[in-house]
Order: sequence, then structure tokens, then C-alpha cells
Amino acid sequence: MLGSILDLHGLFPPIPTPFDETGAIDSAALAEHIRFLSAFDLSGYVVLGSNGEAVHLSNDERDRLVKMARALVPKDRLLIVGTGCPSTRQTIETSKQAASLGADAVLVLPPHYYRGRMTMEALAAHFHAVADAIDIPVIIYNMPACTGMDLDTVTIAAIAEHANIIGLKDSGGNIAKLGVLHQMLGDGFQILAGSASFLLPALSVGAVGGVLALVNIAPAQCLSIQENVQEGNWDRAREIQVQLIEANTAVTSRWGVAGLKAAMQMMGLPSSFVRAPLLDLREPGLGQVKQILKKSNIL
Amino acid sequence: MLGSILDLHGLFPPIPTPFDETGAIDSAALAEHIRFLSAFDLSGYVVLGSNGEAVHLSNDERDRLVKMARALVPKDRLLIVGTGCPSTRQTIETSKQAASLGADAVLVLPPHYYRGRMTMEALAAHFHAVADAIDIPVIIYNMPACTGMDLDTVTIAAIAEHANIIGLKDSGGNIAKLGVLHQMLGDGFQILAGSASFLLPALSVGAVGGVLALVNIAPAQCLSIQENVQEGNWDRAREIQVQLIEANTAVTSRWGVAGLKAAMQMMGLPSSFVRAPLLDLREPGLGQVKQILKKSNIL
Amino acid sequence: MLGSILDLHGLFPPIPTPFDETGAIDSAALAEHIRFLSAFDLSGYVVLGSNGEAVHLSNDERDRLVKMARALVPKDRLLIVGTGCPSTRQTIETSKQAASLGADAVLVLPPHYYRGRMTMEALAAHFHAVADAIDIPVIIYNMPACTGMDLDTVTIAAIAEHANIIGLKDSGGNIAKLGVLHQMLGDGFQILAGSASFLLPALSVGAVGGVLALVNIAPAQCLSIQENVQEGNWDRAREIQVQLIEANTAVTSRWGVAGLKAAMQMMGLPSSFVRAPLLDLREPGLGQVKQILKKSNIL
Amino acid sequence: MLGSILDLHGLFPPIPTPFDETGAIDSAALAEHIRFLSAFDLSGYVVLGSNGEAVHLSNDERDRLVKMARALVPKDRLLIVGTGCPSTRQTIETSKQAASLGADAVLVLPPHYYRGRMTMEALAAHFHAVADAIDIPVIIYNMPACTGMDLDTVTIAAIAEHANIIGLKDSGGNIAKLGVLHQMLGDGFQILAGSASFLLPALSVGAVGGVLALVNIAPAQCLSIQENVQEGNWDRAREIQVQLIEANTAVTSRWGVAGLKAAMQMMGLPSSFVRAPLLDLREPGLGQVKQILKKSNIL
Repeated sequence: MLGSILDLHGLFPPIPTPFDETGAIDSAALAEHIRFLSAFDLSGYVVLGSNGEAVHLSNDERDRLVKMARALVPKDRLLIVGTGCPSTRQTIETSKQAASLGADAVLVLPPHYYRGRMTMEALAAHFHAVADAIDIPVIIYNMPACTGMDLDTVTIAAIAEHANIIGLKDSGGNIAKLGVLHQMLGDGFQILAGSASFLLPALSVGAVGGVLALVNIAPAQCLSIQENVQEGNWDRAREIQVQLIEANTAVTSRWGVAGLKAAMQMMGLPSSFVRAPLLDLREPGLGQVKQILKKSNIL
Repeated sequence: MLGSILDLHGLFPPIPTPFDETGAIDSAALAEHIRFLSAFDLSGYVVLGSNGEAVHLSNDERDRLVKMARALVPKDRLLIVGTGCPSTRQTIETSKQAASLGADAVLVLPPHYYRGRMTMEALAAHFHAVADAIDIPVIIYNMPACTGMDLDTVTIAAIAEHANIIGLKDSGGNIAKLGVLHQMLGDGFQILAGSASFLLPALSVGAVGGVLALVNIAPAQCLSIQENVQEGNWDRAREIQVQLIEANTAVTSRWGVAGLKAAMQMMGLPSSFVRAPLLDLREPGLGQVKQILKKSNIL
Repeated sequence: MLGSILDLHGLFPPIPTPFDETGAIDSAALAEHIRFLSAFDLSGYVVLGSNGEAVHLSNDERDRLVKMARALVPKDRLLIVGTGCPSTRQTIETSKQAASLGADAVLVLPPHYYRGRMTMEALAAHFHAVADAIDIPVIIYNMPACTGMDLDTVTIAAIAEHANIIGLKDSGGNIAKLGVLHQMLGDGFQILAGSASFLLPALSVGAVGGVLALVNIAPAQCLSIQENVQEGNWDRAREIQVQLIEANTAVTSRWGVAGLKAAMQMMGLPSSFVRAPLLDLREPGLGQVKQILKKSNIL
Repeated sequence: MLGSILDLHGLFPPIPTPFDETGAIDSAALAEHIRFLSAFDLSGYVVLGSNGEAVHLSNDERDRLVKMARALVPKDRLLIVGTGCPSTRQTIETSKQAASLGADAVLVLPPHYYRGRMTMEALAAHFHAVADAIDIPVIIYNMPACTGMDLDTVTIAAIAEHANIIGLKDSGGNIAKLGVLHQMLGDGFQILAGSASFLLPALSVGAVGGVLALVNIAPAQCLSIQENVQEGNWDRAREIQVQLIEANTAVTSRWGVAGLKAAMQMMGLPSSFVRAPLLDLREPGLGQVKQILKKSNIL
């Protein structure tokens, strides 16, 4: 269907960057986590996204992380790297570096510091300059909770005119907007849900998969939504979807990366710290996360 | 499943109040429109909602409209009447009046003028006082685009504790929130999508139907989404859903009631005017609506 | 300077409507409150504004309140009546009624229920229709906290083109916007601060006075800001301004009308209840208001 | 009054970083601009703020810019350097570097990428860690238009508890909030207006000066507001204030850094380009800026 375009169907975990107690990247924890996930039929992995605390890493650390990830991710799975920076020149440089280190695609957050000036024209020029500069595809990353800027359909369509811009990860959750985009841009523009809270709703308006924090701790349940849809088991897909929302909220909007890292520890997955100004989760939050994971049959 | 609770499964058109060129209610147009809709398997009708321009009607006009609607709506279909007013006393009075005129349920918009003071406690007290005062059920009406206030799950759950408050019409479109509500409150609390743009997504997290402006002009297409879901035809349901979003946007968020009334006229349905400060749709809007209706196979 | 235009220089209390324990309007309390205020050099009185809980009153109650106020307010002081309603026809009718009952000007809140459709064109048409229909002047009432809609300078200027629209009460508090408006529209368009929290700042960009909830309980202090400015005592004006902000916040954004009514009771002014869904202030709020009033030298 | 605390009274231009046509920092232009400004009685200079496009610079470029600025700024004038970064560790490192290169104070933007988790506790810990790590003072930089986060009074007061955090630059423009802060924190906490649009209003509630983009092109007019206030000429101060708002808006919220750089060129000051994704100003914007500068008696 997509010809030579990179196929984004399926689910992708946005890997949290593990930090040890000294604040350094914990490469052993990263390896263990990706090993755990490789037992599931995931389509690939995202590193250096919001869950990866990319904004908290130095340039050197980002490069090291991409190298580690490329060595750990099997060749038949995609490695997608977050490369959005405030300036076009930095974003191009970072994207080139990711490509040279083996990324299959880059996930580009729109620049947002001067959001009052980020017109459609400015954003299209930015994304097109990045897409021109590299020969791996670009995925747009709409993340209003972090950027304070919710890309509208007209702007996304203008950005998507470039042949090397192949899709969108949307964490905004305006489902009707995703449906409009799918109708406007067709199957050649691949939409990924940015949150497990609306995976099935997004699939119901044409999304092809998702980049979901929850996949890090509940890959089987997330995958079963998409599988049940493919097998026509709507009612079962709906049951699973509804059961996952509270747990997903706990590790995303409610407690964020700290919640996700705490949940990983509770499940016996590699544990790690967040970097300041983020604060590690404490009681009573820890107890609440545990209770939610149990109720959701994840723990 | 719901025992003695009023069953809200299915689709409900929010009827626009027809005004003639003098600004008076056009009772013949109302009759003709409901006659048109009665050929479809709708579960009932909503009057005096946002599409009904309830805020533009005098108390006398509201009463007249409910009487007309009750005479026109078959007894085996529900008549739901919007009765939310700024004060609790007015809302109670209006709701009692609706009940006495034959309404099967009331749809209550939260008071929102003093939104900074509309705490969970204030809103629960308001809704409970209304639910206590009448013996027909109450449906909560979450409509952030008009109220500037998006009821959160904890507030809705607090309101829903009253046995006579049986459901929610949600026009906010935060699908994940609907899923959380369904998980929190179970099947006894009936969720209705407030917009055709997210009917299938809402059904995918537990909604039982919808109050959809688009049903006024495209009842067959809207009904076919729910039917295809029930028959397990996910792919077909998704196709129809995606095709309807643009047309729905035209008669809701983009051009509002004026867009809906213009679309009705284009389709040979009873035409009517809006009341100021709303402005009737003009060119180029009219041409755009026509084009969208054709593209969506409604016209 | 203003020729024949009604002069709005000075301060105006927005009178809270007093309700007795049965919920009825307490006319004795109203009389007592206006008598208390008449000892100060106020320019007039506003009734049926946000502090007057106009949205909680029936049409009959509104008429009665205007009649009472007209009888109580000395002829050499202005009586300004809030008359904004959701529809243009209701606003015209209410404004005509206010004029016939002796109002000197009307204060018109923009219609806001269909705020997505309240374009500059729709709002200008609304205000111009009202200004055409009556022969007393119209004052625009910008109140984003209640309407969810912050009128911009271009829209206000378009509305202000009508000769019978003479000013603006602004409760939004964007001071730079007031300065732009003053520069755009000149001395013929009279700007009133809508909150004592920014009276001096508003005067510093060209406002001529204010409609201030705090005047109800602290008329002398509020007046002294404007007096000190006129006498060139900038430092003293600034000291008083800064001292009043916390008390003003208590009776406006923090606890609203209930806070104002509680403060009036504490000061020995006529006490009264709010109407539901507003809730009367309770502890610990009552104690906090008392403490703030003492600290601010009001109590 | 402030004892040993660095005195922030007066006006500070936030210097735009000049880029030549190749995108490199233009050190000659920087020198020329600071030479122009040194003829006026400014209290100091801010570099690497929002107007300085700090987010578009590499670490090396930032260091070079601070060195140049320190060499250019007379010893009896303050050099304030923007050092806010997304992580606490980067902010500390950058602040230490600025101190070692001769900065008199650092201006710290709150981290905002994970704004949903930036609780009062997280922000206070961040600012206190920075203030502990350096021995030059810290100024808080509230800039909602860029961060999507408007620090409230309680949060600012919690941050300000640290003895080495001496003030606030506020670009939000909520004047009442500045008044509350001044009353809460007293003269020891120095408030600077972040925009010339509300310099006089801010002074009217206790601010001691401003960091104003407009000072770059209109230092004499900006200084005259503060001078007239000190001399008791309220009416003249008000006239100048009102005249400057439109020009200030042109070089801040309306056209941003590109507008400021265009205005500098029109005035014969060193001209330079912005870095992408920002776009240099073009027609018709250029003509509009010119007209506004003339109307405001700046050009």
C-alpha cells in the first residue's frame, strides 16, 4: 500500500532513558529493558522522545544513547530517534547524526519557544529543511502538553507535502482531528496514536498504530487491542482499551516519566531515576501507582 | 442491563428551533422536520439544546416548543428537553415544567457564569437539587465550547452519585476521559457522544449512542456506524466515520447552528433563520457547505 | 472634553443584590447599603452586573431592582444598569426597559454562549443594534472570567464606532490593552477599570475611573487612589494601591460574590445570602477574609 | 534599602544576538549596538534572553557571547546573563560558566518542557539548586508567552525564599499579580517589568525598573517614563507610556525578535538576521513597523 515508504503499522515503545543514582546513563538497564520488550511483536522502538528525557541530555549523551539503541535493536525492527531542537540548524545537525548512527526515521517535535511566531509558513520551512537534509524519513511529533502548541490540520497538511515526511505521532488526543487528517492525506500519511488512552479510538479513524508509553510495561495488552481489531473482535478490543486507560494515565499525564519509571521498577523491569527538575515518585504516589497497576491486571 | 433506568442506547438528533423571517418559531417547519426524521430508527429527540438556540428563547417560547415537540414525537420515542439555567431555582422550575409537558428526561447544562466558583461541591449540589425535584431522569450535558468549562471525571462521578442522574452527553471530545468514566461508573451510567465527529471513537470506549447535530441531515449514515459496529463490520464502520467528520465539522464547530440550518435548506428539509447575535450563513460559506455535503455523499 | 457625552470619570460600586434567607430580594438591605455609600464622593452606581447576580434573577426581579435603585440613587449620581442577554432581541428589550425605569446608561456584556461564532461582525452588529434601539448610552463590559471570551482591541474599536457606545468596563486586567485602546480611541471613549486590583495601573494608561467591587466595602481607600493621583502624590497612591490588592482579590476572583457579601457582613453593612449554585462562604474562608480585611485596614 | 543585595533599579535592554548573512554571530554589530546604548543612563544589559535567541545558540556560542558582552559593558553597569536550561544540571553548569565569565547576575527561565510536572516543589528545588551553586544572584524570569507556564504568586514566593534569589523579570503582564508579590515580599525582592507596554503600570504597583526590548531602540523615551515618575510628573509619564505601547507591541508580541531587528535597521542601528525557524520580517510587515515607529516618534 505504501510502496517504498517506511511502514509504521504497529506499536512502538518510547524508551525511557535509564539513569543510575549518580545521574549517569545506565547502559545495562537499557539493554535489559530492550531485551524484555524484544519478546513481543513490536514494530520498533523510539528513543530520545519525551519519555526519553531528551531535553535533559547533552549532545554527547544523545549520541551515545542512539549508538547503544542501534546495537540493541534487531535489524528487522525500526529504530526511531527524536531529534527536534529549538533551531532548524540544530535539528538538521542532530537528525543527520541520528541517521549516520543507524536511525530508520526521525521523530521531530516542532520548535515551540517562539510559539507566537510559529506560523504555518515557519513550521513548514523548518520541517522541509530537515526533510531535505537527510535521507531517512521524518515523522511529525505533535505534543501539546509539552510544547504548548497544538498543530492544526492545515498546518500538518502543509508540512506533510514533503515526500520525505511520512507520518505523525499525535499525543494531543483530538480524535476527530486525526480522522480529518486521514481523510485529507490518505493512507500514504501514517498516523500513530501518541497515547494508549486512545489507541482504539485512533484506530477507529484511520491510525495505523501507536507510540505508547504503556507499551514499556504492558506490551501484550496493548498489542491485543490491535490484534482483536484485526480479527473483528470489537467488543473484546473495547474491553481491553477501557481497562488500560487508568494505568496509562498514571504513567503519562498524571505522574509522567517518574510514574513510568516507578511502574517499571514495581514490575521487576530495570529501575532508574529521573533527572531534575523532574522529581522521582514518592508516597503516596507510589502506592497509588501500584494499586492502579494491580487493578488493571498489569501487575 | 439497566433495570428500570431509561435506556439511552442509540442516536438522538438535537433539533434546531426553526425561526421564520419575522423571528417567530415556525411550527410547521418543526413538524415537517420531525416527520422527516421519524422514518429512521432513532431512539428519540432532543429539543432546547445548543442547536435549539434555547438561550435565545423566552420562557413562553420554550414551553410552546416542548408542547409542540411532545405532540409530534411518537410515544415510543424519547423526548429529551434541555433545561439548564444559570440559577438552581430557575433550572428546577424549568425542569418541572418540562416534565409536566411530557419530557422523558432533561438534559442539564452546568451553570457556568461564575465558573471560577463552580467547584465540585457547588455543581454536585446544583445537579442533585434538580434531580431531587423531578421524577424524570437527568442527563448531564458537558459542552466546553459553550460553557468554557470542561467537567472532569471526578466532578462527573460526584454528580452521578444521585440515582436519578443517568448519563452524560459529552461534546468535549476527550475520548480517553469517556473511557475512564465508563470504567469508573459502569453500564448504569450511559454515555452519549455529543458530536458525530467522534461517534465511533466514543463507542470504542463504552458510549451507548449519541446526540448528534449531523443526525438532523444524515440520519442513515450516522445510524449505519452503530449498526456496522453491532454486526462486527469494523472496517466499514471506520470508513463511514471518517467520511462524516468534515461534514459534521461544517454544521458544528465551523459554522454552528447557521451551518446546520443552511445544510437543511440545501437538502430540501425545512429551512429557517438563526436569531441574532448569530448570523445566517452567507457566501462563501454557503458554497463551501454545499461542496462538503456533496463530497460526503450527504447531498 | 466629552461634550454632551455622559461623563464616567470616577468610581462606581457594582451593587450586590441582597437576598434574604428565603431567597427573596431584600429591599431594606439594598436601601441601607446605598445609604452607606452615599456618604462618599462616588460618581454613580451599577446594578445588575456580575456582583448583582443578574443571571440569577427573573425578568420581574430585574425590573423591581432597577426601580428600587432609581428611587434610592440621588439624581446627581449615575445609575448604570447591566442589561446583556444571550440574544440581541432580549438585550434590546431589557435595555429599553432599563431606560424607561430611569437608567442613565446600560452596561452590556457581550453574548458568549456561541462564542465560537462571536466574530467581530456578529458582536458589532449586536452592540450597534442595542445602541440604535435606546437613547441612553451603552458601555461595553469585557469580563473574560465569566464569558470565557476576551474582547480584543480591534473588536472593541469596531463596536465603539457607534456614537452611542461611550466606554468600556474592563475586568480582564490586560493593562497594555487598555493603553492601546486609549491611544486608538482617544478621550471620547471612556475606560473604566473593572477591578480595584489594577485601578492605579489602569489610570496610568488613560482610564478615567473604575467599577470596583471593593468600593462596596472600602470606598474611602479606593477614592484616595484617584485623589492622590490628581494631587501628584504618586508614591502615596502606589502605597494604597498595593495595600488593597489582597483584599480586593478576596472579594473578587478568590471568593467572588460570596466573599463580598461575607465581607459586608463583617463590616456591619447589610448582610445577605447568595443564590445557588453559588455557595455562601463558610469556614475557613470566613476567617481568612476577616484576616485579610484587618491586614488591609478595611476592618 | 537593599543592603548588600545587587541593586536592579532602572532599565536594562535585552540585547538581540546579531547574526550575519552566514548565520554567524556578528561581533562588530554587537559592539556597535552596545556603544550606542552606552550613551544613555541604563543600569545594565541582559544577554542570552528571549530577544537574544539563546535557544538558537550552541554552548560555545553562548560562552563567546558572554565574553564579548563582558568586554563591552562598562564595569559600573550590570551584565545579566540568561542561563535557564531544561535540566537542573545544565542550568547549574551554564550559570557557573556565566559567573566565571564575569556576569553580575543570572536570569533563569523556569524549566517548562514537562510543565505538567513543574509543581511548586519541583520549581523551588530547581531554582534553589542553581542559587546554591553560584555566588552571583539569581533573577527569576517569568515568560508565559514562551514557556506556556505562568508562575503564580505562591510559587514565586516559595522560590524567592532563597537569599540568593533577588528578583523577578515578569513578561506576563498581570499587573495585579506584581502588586501582590510586592506586598508579600517587600522591597528586598526586586520586580522588573518585562515589557515596555506596562512599565508605568508595573512601577505603580512597586516594580523597580524593567528589562525592555524597546530600550534597544528607544532608550530615551523609556527612561523618561521613570524619570517623570520620580519627579512627580504623572501626567507626562502617562502620555509617554501610552505613546510607546504600539511600537513596543510591534517589536515584541506582534513581530518578535524579527520585528526588533528590522526596527534596529530602520533606525540606523546595526542590522542582523534571525535564525530559523524564525523568519526575517518582510513586506507588508516592514512597512507597518516603519509607520508605527514614525507615529510613535521613535523614527
